[in-house]
Amino acid sequence: MTGTTGIGEHQFDGMWADLEPVGRAASGRGYRRFAWTAQDAELREWFTAEAGRRSLDVTTDRAGNLWAWWGDPDAAAAAGDPGIVTGSHLDSVAEGGAYDGPLGVISAFAALDLLRAGGHRLARPLGVVCFGDEEGTRFGVACAGSRILTGQLDPDRARSLSDANGSSMAEAMSACGQAVATLGPDQDALRRIGAFVELHVEQGRGLVDLGRSVAVGTEIWPHGRWRLDLVGEANHAGTTRLGDRRDPMLDLAAAVVAARSAAERLGCVATIGKVSVEPNAVNAIPSRVTAWLDARGPVQSDVEAVVAAVGVAARTPAVSESTTPPAVFDTALGDRLAAVLDDAPRLATGAGHDAGALASAGIPAAMLFVRNPTGVSHSPDEYAERDDCIEGVHALARVLRELTR
Amino acid sequence: MTGTTGIGEHQFDGMWADLEPVGRAASGRGYRRFAWTAQDAELREWFTAEAGRRSLDVTTDRAGNLWAWWGDPDAAAAAGDPGIVTGSHLDSVAEGGAYDGPLGVISAFAALDLLRAGGHRLARPLGVVCFGDEEGTRFGVACAGSRILTGQLDPDRARSLSDANGSSMAEAMSACGQAVATLGPDQDALRRIGAFVELHVEQGRGLVDLGRSVAVGTEIWPHGRWRLDLVGEANHAGTTRLGDRRDPMLDLAAAVVAARSAAERLGCVATIGKVSVEPNAVNAIPSRVTAWLDARGPVQSDVEAVVAAVGVAARTPAVSESTTPPAVFDTALGDRLAAVLDDAPRLATGAGHDAGALASAGIPAAMLFVRNPTGVSHSPDEYAERDDCIEGVHALARVLRELTR
Repeated sequence: MTGTTGIGEHQFDGMWADLEPVGRAASGRGYRRFAWTAQDAELREWFTAEAGRRSLDVTTDRAGNLWAWWGDPDAAAAAGDPGIVTGSHLDSVAEGGAYDGPLGVISAFAALDLLRAGGHRLARPLGVVCFGDEEGTRFGVACAGSRILTGQLDPDRARSLSDANGSSMAEAMSACGQAVATLGPDQDALRRIGAFVELHVEQGRGLVDLGRSVAVGTEIWPHGRWRLDLVGEANHAGTTRLGDRRDPMLDLAAAVVAARSAAERLGCVATIGKVSVEPNAVNAIPSRVTAWLDARGPVQSDVEAVVAAVGVAARTPAVSESTTPPAVFDTALGDRLAAVLDDAPRLATGAGHDAGALASAGIPAAMLFVRNPTGVSHSPDEYAERDDCIEGVHALARVLRELTR
Repeated sequence: MTGTTGIGEHQFDGMWADLEPVGRAASGRGYRRFAWTAQDAELREWFTAEAGRRSLDVTTDRAGNLWAWWGDPDAAAAAGDPGIVTGSHLDSVAEGGAYDGPLGVISAFAALDLLRAGGHRLARPLGVVCFGDEEGTRFGVACAGSRILTGQLDPDRARSLSDANGSSMAEAMSACGQAVATLGPDQDALRRIGAFVELHVEQGRGLVDLGRSVAVGTEIWPHGRWRLDLVGEANHAGTTRLGDRRDPMLDLAAAVVAARSAAERLGCVATIGKVSVEPNAVNAIPSRVTAWLDARGPVQSDVEAVVAAVGVAARTPAVSESTTPPAVFDTALGDRLAAVLDDAPRLATGAGHDAGALASAGIPAAMLFVRNPTGVSHSPDEYAERDDCIEGVHALARVLRELTR
């Protein structure tokens, strides 16, 4: 990153440089920072060290999320005026980018530094949070940390989720020293949150089209993940007559085509991005193809119609693995943020976020999006200009100053 | 297996029972007997022990194939009247059946036992062979052992083939104690072969339709494996507009549909049975999908037309990984076998076999097929009736008696 260096920016650049080498993908392109791995532990240690550098105590809630508080959040909660929280997550998808998640955590610390450097007098405590397992890449459920925290993901189900190698989330958490027996909603942690503001790199090109660098989020589209269990009959690829075949790869092809056409017709997006084939041999008709469908859109019934159309095409109904109803952010909070930011534009998004999970649990939540020049995300090519990132830090600082004055 | 027990059958049942537990798939369904693994080593030790039980010396050729000779093959070769060889392979595809390969090796030993029990006087040496790595499941090239032996697979290329974990064939061979430096065609081993007869479970339903238990093979269809490298752009599944996407999963769907329709049109078979997706995450548009096409048919130009049609549909030409021209078995030898077997029916096949590799190298070769009641192969459900297997042993014994009298 290049550009001018001022208060907050120096810290931003330093934190950015510290995280750059952590959890690089073996391919050398992008990151693999899966939840509850050695890479994740290193990121969490970094968070704790950054908090310590600012004399903030770090606590871990019963869902494994990390909290660093400036001020006494329990006293404020007891007084009926709970604190303001900002932050995001540090985990990534496979071959993910550097911005999705870390930008919000780094910006949180940098904004706090800006407030302190400006001599801000804190009327309400300010917390920085690092949510665990936001991407859900390893165990298949997105926003696992914020959903367990708010009671939207059952702890028994969470414990038993397993990764591609058959390790359970409980085993992975234990290996990282996270208590598993007490996993579940954490009322103490929740009571401390008066409002949550998550800064995040935009994952589309809305801000590019608007020619602006920062926007206020309005809502998260309803979205979900569905599984297609396509069953066939393994057989020899060279000797089985076409008419005798039960080839589930044909059902996959039909599902892929239907997902795209139904999404086009209904104004949604739909993706089949994960596929598993058994036995996955060149000279064997597959016995089974498992595929996962990601579908999102502004209108929940349209999303459901896309999923149904894919099931019809694949000749087997899609099985829901997780669905998230629309999460509309707190309107009053959004208005206040937009006003503080000189009438920042408003954007809805198709991406799930911890801010959405908190909003769905009734916690006032808001988001700030930072411009992404290509719109690319969940890719090594994900990018934001440093100047836009710094503008994001300043915007977040202005918002937090307003909310904690 | 159930049925009557006579000479040769007792041995058959014992060998069958010995192999039953070796290399079971972790799923409990079928076998994973990949080349140059611990499971393969156990199978090769079994072969050596069975040869030893019959006082046959075992030699390993420069391609890693195992040979057990009754009689002196070098003296016969020097006298211009080389021996007769029978056998098959012991490796399997992933989640393969028990019959594809082992039936031919077990039947070879059982037929030899029958000849000896009947007091057969051997006029030419009789060899039993176990070819290495017939399926090519691990390293991607079928009939690797017989192709290296006959100079149809370059030893440098073979050494450098790598498996899904990045291990090379050279490393895998070394780990099993097989010499790698001398890998290549083996003229000494080839000189000993006057003719080769491979017994194999049928992998279609030709014999079911004919109501017969044993057939003589006529030819192996031209066939091959091609790779489709479908390149897209990784991006967020929730926020990337449909029009902004470069999603290679759509190209895969088009390729799968085209493979089926072109094969139907041209009287071939075509299969996409192996797929690899990157990053293979539910919420990411893939950056790359790699798919493998297996195509076969009676007419080589038709097979090539199928492959071309798939490349057009996928918007990227298919890359050849291995192709095998038609292998027509020795007509005189086939006639002799059919006559000995009371006018056994003749069948062509779409499956590659070591007998095809030998035939392509100019060695007189023939095959016997044993009825498969469902036609299913390369599957845990692959099956043959014991009575048909025993009939196959007797047919093989009659053929070998004729050829070595």
